[in-house]
Amino acid sequence: MLEFELLATDGRARRGRLTLKHGIVETPMFMPVGTYGTVKGVLPRSLEEMGAQIILGNTFHLWLRPGLEVLRQFGGLHRFERWTRPILTDSGGFQVWSLGEMRRISEEGVRFASPVDGDKLFLTPEISMQIQTVLDSDIVMQFDECTPYHTKGHVTTEAEACSSMQLSLRWAARCKVEFDRLANPNALFGIVQGGMYELLREASIAALVDMDLPGYAVGGVSVGEPKEDMLRIVAHTPHRLPEDKPRYLMGVGTPEDLVEGVAQGVDLFDCVLPTRNARNAHLFTRFGDIKLRNARYRNDALPIDETCRCYTCSNGFSRAYLQHLERCSEMLAPMLASIHNLHYYLNLMREIREALECGRFAGWRTQFESDRVRGV
Amino acid sequence: MLEFELLATDGRARRGRLTLKHGIVETPMFMPVGTYGTVKGVLPRSLEEMGAQIILGNTFHLWLRPGLEVLRQFGGLHRFERWTRPILTDSGGFQVWSLGEMRRISEEGVRFASPVDGDKLFLTPEISMQIQTVLDSDIVMQFDECTPYHTKGHVTTEAEACSSMQLSLRWAARCKVEFDRLANPNALFGIVQGGMYELLREASIAALVDMDLPGYAVGGVSVGEPKEDMLRIVAHTPHRLPEDKPRYLMGVGTPEDLVEGVAQGVDLFDCVLPTRNARNAHLFTRFGDIKLRNARYRNDALPIDETCRCYTCSNGFSRAYLQHLERCSEMLAPMLASIHNLHYYLNLMREIREALECGRFAGWRTQFESDRVRGV
Repeated sequence: MLEFELLATDGRARRGRLTLKHGIVETPMFMPVGTYGTVKGVLPRSLEEMGAQIILGNTFHLWLRPGLEVLRQFGGLHRFERWTRPILTDSGGFQVWSLGEMRRISEEGVRFASPVDGDKLFLTPEISMQIQTVLDSDIVMQFDECTPYHTKGHVTTEAEACSSMQLSLRWAARCKVEFDRLANPNALFGIVQGGMYELLREASIAALVDMDLPGYAVGGVSVGEPKEDMLRIVAHTPHRLPEDKPRYLMGVGTPEDLVEGVAQGVDLFDCVLPTRNARNAHLFTRFGDIKLRNARYRNDALPIDETCRCYTCSNGFSRAYLQHLERCSEMLAPMLASIHNLHYYLNLMREIREALECGRFAGWRTQFESDRVRGV
Repeated sequence: MLEFELLATDGRARRGRLTLKHGIVETPMFMPVGTYGTVKGVLPRSLEEMGAQIILGNTFHLWLRPGLEVLRQFGGLHRFERWTRPILTDSGGFQVWSLGEMRRISEEGVRFASPVDGDKLFLTPEISMQIQTVLDSDIVMQFDECTPYHTKGHVTTEAEACSSMQLSLRWAARCKVEFDRLANPNALFGIVQGGMYELLREASIAALVDMDLPGYAVGGVSVGEPKEDMLRIVAHTPHRLPEDKPRYLMGVGTPEDLVEGVAQGVDLFDCVLPTRNARNAHLFTRFGDIKLRNARYRNDALPIDETCRCYTCSNGFSRAYLQHLERCSEMLAPMLASIHNLHYYLNLMREIREALECGRFAGWRTQFESDRVRGV
């Protein structure tokens, strides 16, 4: 169950509408990350109010806790976490990859020790599909190997990246077979790999497009590479994907990265940055970022951003108050900061969608960039 | 600025209405504790929605952080923490008392080292009044010495309790002089001390009533004494206070303690129990308490309490989900639990007020007590 409608284009940038089992997603859209079945520190009602149309869940984490037995009993992740709008789940590939020395990758899948209790676990393309079918997420990601920027102390070579990309392709094929066998009614997305090598990215796209999946993601960026490499791959890859299918840039990034991603034809984004930075007192605003711990905010009676309409800013919680909460390790600090940062990201995408609708994305972007360096 | 209207009585129990500068408080009322200018883990909007009419702030903590300079600039605690309804602030007496070995009490006041940065500080009745005047709280508490249940390893003797109570009385007189000198437009409450000795409690009441303060609190309970001593003092003290003034039982307690307090003529309560227990996965319900970590809740799809109308219960967040959040140390666990527990306490007081209005408090109490032991 997935429909994608292209409403407008502006250069490579696209304004689209994605219809999923649990609702509609206007694109370009940012997806808040809800690893363990909760976007950290934010009530679901706050997410709804700030216009979140789709959130993420992490297959790997939810498999470990609460586990499949509980999730199956609840009929999936939606009813467990009380979120009625669409959910995308990653495949667990990125998380097992992040375990580093703790995991062993073979053709069959990945063996690793549970970081929760040390249990020996085995994750394969088939098991990832089985878990995501229990989760009943609207968008299911293929199980892939995330090609790292560094391999054994050197920059991953083209041969290494190629072999890794081809493993992801074979896993994609196995995912599709298992997804169909399970009669999963949702949408399976393939993931383009290929490291920092344009030709490998093109080869990955060609093979994935042959599988005729309902959507595609660009993976293996934001994995430790220099910014210019990330931008080179983002400039090269998304617009080569089928025009009539949604494109998702995984794990990216800063507000500026999102704007560049849209310019390169990306429809969907996710990143932990707004929530993680909120927990570290780092706030995003139209006029640049605020490090709340800075002594200059000690007496500052202004809200984070006077032009912002989030709960935190529109109710007048001041920078001084937020700094005070942060100094006292009060939970309300990350709560109010997470609401603001997520609202900032979602509002950024709303502005982008409006600009795309009237074909004035380039002009909007010029203003965005000059505002962002203006200073708070 | 304080008016108190007695709307109904039922035995010693009273249904009243307190009018303060920032609004009306229907009594009996429970006051959530907001030590550092935030009720831990709860958005102000959630407090408003659950019917909190007055919250607490802690003079001692707010004096240390953010400090008077910031609070003065904001024109008081209300504008700093963005709470428009009434606020009661304690005097700091209980907190310096809690420092134990770290403080030295003299006639003049209390010397102690700041638990935040080790600075040597001196708190006196006058300074407490000056701080609370800057805070602009609707109800200002006198600076007192909280008589402990144990002194130097033995149960505090009557002579020790008497001397401590008399110090609190002298401090009350100094508070009143300073409060008037500062032309503080709010209401100063006296605090009855006297330890576990009925005659001392009566002497304390007599002296405080002579000062003609607008309200009185019962302090020095819930300080480590056996439950039967606490109940004995609560049965002896509140109803001896002037009928036409509000009575506040400080730092008490469990739902059952609150019901008993009301029966003995108390109008106002505060306690950290609902929020602190929420952070320890201990939930209060009509049918008894829930320790959420218990394995029996692992698959439990029921809300905390099906009869509860709080955000957490009415949105169907299940015991299984809350246990999962708790196991994963997700902030949403204490957030949802704090909303539920505070709603439970505030709703308990709402039920009590309704029972008092129709003179059926005794019948309501019988049902309350049988419900509470029924089991979840």
